[in-house]
Amino acid sequence: MSDLEIVRSISELRAAITGWRRDGQTVALVPTMGALHDAHMALMHEARSRADRVVATIFVNPTQFAADEDLDSYPRHEAADIEKLQTDGVDLLFAPEASEVYPDGFATTITVTGVSEGLCGDHRPGHFAGVATVVTKLLLQALPDIALFGEKDYQQLQVIHRLSRDLNIPVEILGVPTVREPDGLAMSSRNLHLSKAERDVAPQMYRTLMDVAARLRNGIGSEAACAAGRVQLAENGFSPVEYLEVRDAETLAQPLSGHSRRVLSAAWLGETRLIDSIPLP
Amino acid sequence: MSDLEIVRSISELRAAITGWRRDGQTVALVPTMGALHDAHMALMHEARSRADRVVATIFVNPTQFAADEDLDSYPRHEAADIEKLQTDGVDLLFAPEASEVYPDGFATTITVTGVSEGLCGDHRPGHFAGVATVVTKLLLQALPDIALFGEKDYQQLQVIHRLSRDLNIPVEILGVPTVREPDGLAMSSRNLHLSKAERDVAPQMYRTLMDVAARLRNGIGSEAACAAGRVQLAENGFSPVEYLEVRDAETLAQPLSGHSRRVLSAAWLGETRLIDSIPLP
Repeated sequence: MSDLEIVRSISELRAAITGWRRDGQTVALVPTMGALHDAHMALMHEARSRADRVVATIFVNPTQFAADEDLDSYPRHEAADIEKLQTDGVDLLFAPEASEVYPDGFATTITVTGVSEGLCGDHRPGHFAGVATVVTKLLLQALPDIALFGEKDYQQLQVIHRLSRDLNIPVEILGVPTVREPDGLAMSSRNLHLSKAERDVAPQMYRTLMDVAARLRNGIGSEAACAAGRVQLAENGFSPVEYLEVRDAETLAQPLSGHSRRVLSAAWLGETRLIDSIPLP
Repeated sequence: MSDLEIVRSISELRAAITGWRRDGQTVALVPTMGALHDAHMALMHEARSRADRVVATIFVNPTQFAADEDLDSYPRHEAADIEKLQTDGVDLLFAPEASEVYPDGFATTITVTGVSEGLCGDHRPGHFAGVATVVTKLLLQALPDIALFGEKDYQQLQVIHRLSRDLNIPVEILGVPTVREPDGLAMSSRNLHLSKAERDVAPQMYRTLMDVAARLRNGIGSEAACAAGRVQLAENGFSPVEYLEVRDAETLAQPLSGHSRRVLSAAWLGETRLIDSIPLP
């Protein structure tokens, strides 16, 4: 148990971090939308190993949800989240209200072309502009030495890498590998929405990605392997299957020979949208 | 004469500024597009009065020029600029190549709604997105305590105020009043393009703005006063007159009673586009 300091305003956040910096301490930032689970805690542990101080943020950012998406039903468990952060020795929680992040007159948007197009970008219009804008704000509010994001939201991670380089944000961005349940399901706050039957099926997304990787290893072409994977998801009850694609691991464009690749998928189980991805060797 | 250090790379810029910070010195940034004149030097003097170190940047930013605009003919006088900065005791000049600012793969754009719409925003599509993006980059490359911009480019200044607040950029933004020639013409690098005959007429823009302000003081309505001002510009040979408007001094929206106001204009003399604006009491 540590003394977790909880702040709601940018000025309090900066005061705390400025004090640490004055003492020569380094700072790691872990932005989250709350409903914390073991994958978030893996980010906190990694953060702890890389900096003297760990700052978590909890902010369910309204601008990255489209009007028909699950902003209202997105899980919010702040009391339980605070307990986890305390148990884990996180130093500071920044949990602002929306009015602190987007005061009256707010008018600025950051867009990233290329890496934010296609895949989730095709199915969630405006989502990555919302992510890019709020992450830039969080990075500039805290100005940490390093900020950590899960590879589970892989396209988001690559968008953040891109904008951070492009805008010369003086913060190291680190992606942390996806943390999985024992049956392979990628941990996600949205898994809480799955029914018992859906939860039993959900690990088939990871299984399908592994099968695509195996087929590629066996010399099957990328298009055929992905088509088979999409069928496999549909046969397991995922509907609609938004995409299952092999892409360049950095740009998310069509893969170039010699570059790292990744296979990525998004599909629905009932009312819940699941995404997952794995690196290809 | 001082020892002006000249750097071309972001890493050299940061190394110099980091060194000063380590010594507890404050830093002021003055972004310019070069072709320095007395109004730029007024920015440098103001910067000197507010910080221990003054950093000037010279970068003719291609992304804020539309395809049909004057990027190629924009004046570039780096040797003369360097001499002025040396004489004036500026500490550091950052003058990067475009490839340093926009390396391969660059994909990020910052847009600001509201304040960047209308006025110049209507006549220079994409201009303020180019400005917003490059100014954000310069601010984050240097992370000064304060950055200074001329009020001559008044809409640009308000766009920068807006994005700086919106993105939580930890830099104070300061606007510095327009510096004028003895005959009232607002100093601008583009004045170099005026023919002798055009240069003789050019101060009529300031005179017209002053006349609009006088008419408003005398109780003439804003619409009538602006219409008369547009006629006055046209009769003096400005063509086309893009706009002459009274606006809220902060948001550049239609003025609200009790808010500060400003009268702003843009119009062409031959091949040269001139802008100017003055505060209303």
